[in-house]
Amino acid sequence: GKVFKVAVLPGDGIGPEVMAEALRVLDAVEAKYDVKFERTHANVGGAGIDNEGKALPETTVNICKASDAILFGSVGGPKWESLPPDEQPERGALLPLRKIFGLYANLRPAIIFPSLTGASSLKEEVIAGGFNVLVIRELTGGIYFAQPKGIEGEGRDRVGFDTMRYSVPEIERITHVAFQAARKRGKKVCSIDKANVLSSSVLWREVVIGIAKEYPDVELTHMYVDNAAMQLVRWPKQFDVILCENMFGDILSDEAAMLTGSLGMLPSASLAEGTFGMYEPSGGSAPDIAGQGIANPIAQILSMGMMLKFSFGMVDAADAIDNAVAKVLDQGFRTRDIFQDKPGERLVNTKEMGDAIIAAL
Amino acid sequence: GKVFKVAVLPGDGIGPEVMAEALRVLDAVEAKYDVKFERTHANVGGAGIDNEGKALPETTVNICKASDAILFGSVGGPKWESLPPDEQPERGALLPLRKIFGLYANLRPAIIFPSLTGASSLKEEVIAGGFNVLVIRELTGGIYFAQPKGIEGEGRDRVGFDTMRYSVPEIERITHVAFQAARKRGKKVCSIDKANVLSSSVLWREVVIGIAKEYPDVELTHMYVDNAAMQLVRWPKQFDVILCENMFGDILSDEAAMLTGSLGMLPSASLAEGTFGMYEPSGGSAPDIAGQGIANPIAQILSMGMMLKFSFGMVDAADAIDNAVAKVLDQGFRTRDIFQDKPGERLVNTKEMGDAIIAAL
Ligand SMILES: CC(C)[C@H](C(=O)O)[C@@H](O)C(=O)O
Ligand SMILES: CC(C)[C@H](C(=O)O)[C@@H](O)C(=O)O
Repeated sequence: GKVFKVAVLPGDGIGPEVMAEALRVLDAVEAKYDVKFERTHANVGGAGIDNEGKALPETTVNICKASDAILFGSVGGPKWESLPPDEQPERGALLPLRKIFGLYANLRPAIIFPSLTGASSLKEEVIAGGFNVLVIRELTGGIYFAQPKGIEGEGRDRVGFDTMRYSVPEIERITHVAFQAARKRGKKVCSIDKANVLSSSVLWREVVIGIAKEYPDVELTHMYVDNAAMQLVRWPKQFDVILCENMFGDILSDEAAMLTGSLGMLPSASLAEGTFGMYEPSGGSAPDIAGQGIANPIAQILSMGMMLKFSFGMVDAADAIDNAVAKVLDQGFRTRDIFQDKPGERLVNTKEMGDAIIAAL
Repeated sequence: GKVFKVAVLPGDGIGPEVMAEALRVLDAVEAKYDVKFERTHANVGGAGIDNEGKALPETTVNICKASDAILFGSVGGPKWESLPPDEQPERGALLPLRKIFGLYANLRPAIIFPSLTGASSLKEEVIAGGFNVLVIRELTGGIYFAQPKGIEGEGRDRVGFDTMRYSVPEIERITHVAFQAARKRGKKVCSIDKANVLSSSVLWREVVIGIAKEYPDVELTHMYVDNAAMQLVRWPKQFDVILCENMFGDILSDEAAMLTGSLGMLPSASLAEGTFGMYEPSGGSAPDIAGQGIANPIAQILSMGMMLKFSFGMVDAADAIDNAVAKVLDQGFRTRDIFQDKPGERLVNTKEMGDAIIAAL
């Protein structure tokens, strides 16, 4: 059987609790398929700051480098909020991880499970039957990383500045990811830009149009980012794959995720060229409920499923996990965040949800 | 009596139709108050392109310069969509107007009128009783205008780039606008930035905090733009005044507007230092219904009301217009876009809505 190395970075807040369930599901995958997962735990975020002095310690980077994939929990909390932004758990861990490992393609599904439409703040008629949008965000370029960036001058003469920049190859490779994903889904890509104002967007649009020619079976449309922020609210079902540069993707993927009403259900993948990737829940570390054993582990478990699929090529096992999650939802299992007290629902804690998913596997 | 000069730029699509009603309401204001409005019509947008060769003709600029305020309709339509972005009606007219007249403060109220909550795609329980958010967007700085900006290189070596830049005085003056507005409303300012990633945002936050000290009666909070895009969907009522730099304001003001479900109701003001300003509906030119006399003139009429208030200091007249609009809504008058076929509603066309508002005045 194959052996895969996984760097396990539980992080802060509910991270360790939900990670524990994901790892138990991983055990079940080992038992069912002919595969071994060698796991090495490492500190990240607030746990990194507290135990090793920084959000992304060197030991953690080295453990990740020696692994085939990173399974990431969540980071951050009030304890570290007064640190300078650069040193805070979120920014201090995530941005360097993305850069060091070249995680240029961020995949964030925003899915409403039909049984959970009640959790959305959108009206029933807008989301009847659920929706399924995949936001593909460029993650290592644009205004996040380009230079120059800084604050110059003294006192009232200061100016703060950032640079949004994209090269053709950067746009090409993320566009391929979007079209390849669309091919396996609804066959539609909506590319987001602000080409009426930004030069980087003019290039973005032109390159996307060029790459689209290689995918005649996939429909390409373009939308300005301001309009996209509106259209997501108005009629999310119009979208299949949404392709965005880094900052627009940050904003729109969060908006789309919140529209589902169940952040605790949404996984994400951040992929490098080749098979390396980092997998993390879309929601935060939820410090308010940490340590109580009541957090929803589904996003972490589905993130682990994405790891099986994208880094280890275990499509069947990933599908089995998706199906097990769908099944326990149909059976009425609900952690507190998705409990609506309807007939047939059963309130469970983190571990019981893990048990149910393992049983369904 | 006073005499004010108004540049009237109806533009394209439904622009001329809704403008006609706003001007009839302006007649009613003249009749009621001791004031004269000298109006000069000028081409803008597609009408500018068709009649004078560009989206913002020189004659139009000169007419605006000779006026005390600009009343703007809406621009754009399929006819001009294949032009280069720079020459298109929206970008080609709006960005130069903002720059030439120093319209640095964009005020965009996102209001759900209690009688129109049904139009929102948000659930009744999320918006019960309506909500009232005022987005204040910096409009002449940031990534829209800063240099360098362009595309360099050849073929696959090309890079596209833009610069996001803010100076201290630019941040200070828009922050004053936000705090002064908040003082007259809910006394809360939420400043939006991405200070965990952008240097311009680090400066933005620092300057906002400094100015806030002059307004101890107003509560200041900060939110990252991605979180704001989520929070607007989750619970819009948590916001009073939202303060944004140019691009974040573009995105969030559109999202907030769409959350109300009735774009045809929302006015906007773009103010210069002093009393000069430009006033325009938030919605677009709606070419699909243009020429049929069925468009909703309320956004245009409320925009005119903002002109009376901000450029001419006629607060009473502006309030009277707001009240007249509220009254006709209570009376059940509905143009097609806000008609829900409920008991007491009466479907009217553009002109009948204008008549009703004039009668209510
Ligand atoms: C923490 C922050 C730097 C990060 C981002 O903006 O990318 C986060 O919002 C995300 O989306 O993962
Ligand atoms: C047309 C475009 C340049 C403009 C902008 O982005 O500012 C528009 O979206 C707006 O918000 O007025």
